[in-house]
Amino acid sequence: MTAPQPAATSPMPRSVTRPKGFRAAGITCGIKVSGKPDLMLIAADRTCSAAGVFTRNQVVGAPVTVSREHLKQARGRGRAMICNSGCSNVATGEQGLEDARTMCAGIGSALGIPTREVLVCSTGVIGRLLPMAKITPGLQRISQELAHGPAADQAAARAILTTDLVAKATSRSVKIGGQRVTLGGIAKGSGMIAPNMATMLAFLTTDAVIAPALLQAALRSASAASFNRITVDSDTSTSDAALILASGAADHAPLEAGSAELTTFTDALTDLCQELAYEIIRDGEGATKIFRVRVKGARNLTEADQVGRTVADSPLVKTAVHGGDPNWGRLAAATGRAGAKFDSQKLAIYIEGIPVYESAVPIPQTPANIKKLEKAMAKREIRFTIDLGMGEATCEWLGCDLSREYIAINADYTT
Amino acid sequence: MTAPQPAATSPMPRSVTRPKGFRAAGITCGIKVSGKPDLMLIAADRTCSAAGVFTRNQVVGAPVTVSREHLKQARGRGRAMICNSGCSNVATGEQGLEDARTMCAGIGSALGIPTREVLVCSTGVIGRLLPMAKITPGLQRISQELAHGPAADQAAARAILTTDLVAKATSRSVKIGGQRVTLGGIAKGSGMIAPNMATMLAFLTTDAVIAPALLQAALRSASAASFNRITVDSDTSTSDAALILASGAADHAPLEAGSAELTTFTDALTDLCQELAYEIIRDGEGATKIFRVRVKGARNLTEADQVGRTVADSPLVKTAVHGGDPNWGRLAAATGRAGAKFDSQKLAIYIEGIPVYESAVPIPQTPANIKKLEKAMAKREIRFTIDLGMGEATCEWLGCDLSREYIAINADYTT
Repeated sequence: MTAPQPAATSPMPRSVTRPKGFRAAGITCGIKVSGKPDLMLIAADRTCSAAGVFTRNQVVGAPVTVSREHLKQARGRGRAMICNSGCSNVATGEQGLEDARTMCAGIGSALGIPTREVLVCSTGVIGRLLPMAKITPGLQRISQELAHGPAADQAAARAILTTDLVAKATSRSVKIGGQRVTLGGIAKGSGMIAPNMATMLAFLTTDAVIAPALLQAALRSASAASFNRITVDSDTSTSDAALILASGAADHAPLEAGSAELTTFTDALTDLCQELAYEIIRDGEGATKIFRVRVKGARNLTEADQVGRTVADSPLVKTAVHGGDPNWGRLAAATGRAGAKFDSQKLAIYIEGIPVYESAVPIPQTPANIKKLEKAMAKREIRFTIDLGMGEATCEWLGCDLSREYIAINADYTT
Repeated sequence: MTAPQPAATSPMPRSVTRPKGFRAAGITCGIKVSGKPDLMLIAADRTCSAAGVFTRNQVVGAPVTVSREHLKQARGRGRAMICNSGCSNVATGEQGLEDARTMCAGIGSALGIPTREVLVCSTGVIGRLLPMAKITPGLQRISQELAHGPAADQAAARAILTTDLVAKATSRSVKIGGQRVTLGGIAKGSGMIAPNMATMLAFLTTDAVIAPALLQAALRSASAASFNRITVDSDTSTSDAALILASGAADHAPLEAGSAELTTFTDALTDLCQELAYEIIRDGEGATKIFRVRVKGARNLTEADQVGRTVADSPLVKTAVHGGDPNWGRLAAATGRAGAKFDSQKLAIYIEGIPVYESAVPIPQTPANIKKLEKAMAKREIRFTIDLGMGEATCEWLGCDLSREYIAINADYTT
């Protein structure tokens, strides 16, 4: 199997300290046996609007509980995001909650800000307590290493990784009210590590001037169209989270509900999150190929999403992608069982734009088209389009193939 | 990988012609290139009560449409079940419907019974028309080969297989009103064959005296607790069907709604279907191990089923089973994302009866228990119990592991 190639030749894009008002750091505090960086901090120069979206899993890690509490207590204000990798602080009971609170309090104390203005995430092995003897001095040290610039961005992006092969970082810049507004973000995904939670984390920053409620709505919308539309193996982590701080350091008038400016901001945030989501999938465990599932003609967005998710999650579709098989039958079968209502006579399926199934029968292919299909399926990135022919709702999901390497990563490892 | 061992030493159990009033046959009519048997017929000496349950996929094969029509037209009466393997007659449009009807008409003509009293199934490759030039003479020939006894049972069970490694057949016998009532069945599953529908088919017979509506209800109940609670890879076929004929040749008084006798019958049918379902899972593609997911304490059956299905379908759980990893974290995470409402403090998880997770924390294991857990996970069949602690609803799902062989079967094959 061919692993995705890290973009070793191009420098990592700027990210979380590109927007005005933020510093970041990433250090090694000794949680990971490997000695790789395992503590990340992003801090703002002043109190920000803050927002977060979290896993819908009924079983959640202590950091999710504490971050939710802090967002509520601080009424959507925040000033720092602390994250350790190497230990997820999941299934750790009361002690886990106390440790997550201690992490926030440690940063609060080091930076001279209220504990409730600190958000916390953890990722790594589950069922083990955080090594607080290593983390506590780390919190002091990392608070002193906060900096602006590419090196700080990179250190932060690297310190949140677990089994990810590459760091994921990017930024966007848009004009709002004639002023430049910048957004940055880092993310991790991919890595199932013993005992295996495929945790997806994203830390986002912006210098936009935006109230907490609007920021929360923008983050929810952006996540729905990015992080919530990717799937490596259908398993949802107990720790998934995307957090954002908005410093308000840009010079535009505050964004208003329903305004074109808010739309501009939300679109930029969505675009940024989609790039991070794409990078997460590209780095999926054992993934050698990516596929996009574009769903069209659904009666509503819920049904469009059901189809997108079901097709992107289907083991038969994923193995067909792995094997380069233009298998319209598996696409049709997964579409049919997704739970969306449609008339199978109206269903149309395309592989890289080539119609393969229409009016309940496969489309006879010319030899030229067969060659095109084979070529399309051999690509590293494949686009499927599924038109239900029932309405106007559309969406796009991202998935990756299912390879022997996935089995190796997840079966051969024993806790 | 070690394939499940066919029970080569023990003879195949009696099945569809053990109940009074049925004959069966299985022949080679030339659909399969391999020359293996590919046409199966079960016929009753007189008109039976008939019932069927079918795939819920929105995309269905022509035989499903025609069998549904015939059950309706004949008001739940039937006398024969014809099935070919090697070609599924799915995604074949109007011609496919005509071919399915021709198969029924051919059997009707050969046996001198109305076409609407013939039910039809097909399994195999999709998107290709049935080779009617081979099937039509086959229908004549198979009608002349109908017989009672073990040889007929076996021929029928073998003729419906595709990539299954072993034939699946069994029977049950119960006393109702002092009289012996017998039930028999054959099934196929497992096999994804190019271009890959994991079709599950079951053909059931009984000599019970039961009205069509009660037979339909009994079959629906039995299927819900058997065929609908197994999963090889979460993909639902466009052709799944379970059909039953009841000859009424036993001597008891007709079964009545709400009676203890009807419960006895339904229990026996459920038990029979569960054995066939177990055999299907044991023969799952690339499967080396089976696991049972017992869900307890759910608020209702819908939520119990959501948890059972999600855990049994989870790629992370399946790979943990494959690798023999007693990974309570993956079980907890899959339970949490299933959609059932529960309090994670009340969740308890057991592996082979050993508690591994309670009150939101993993249970510290003694060295003796760790050995027991390792031994349990090394078994060919593993039992997980998930207690949601919310109510009284329970269910049991069957799943199989995810192996490299699954990838090989489904990725390396190109249509």
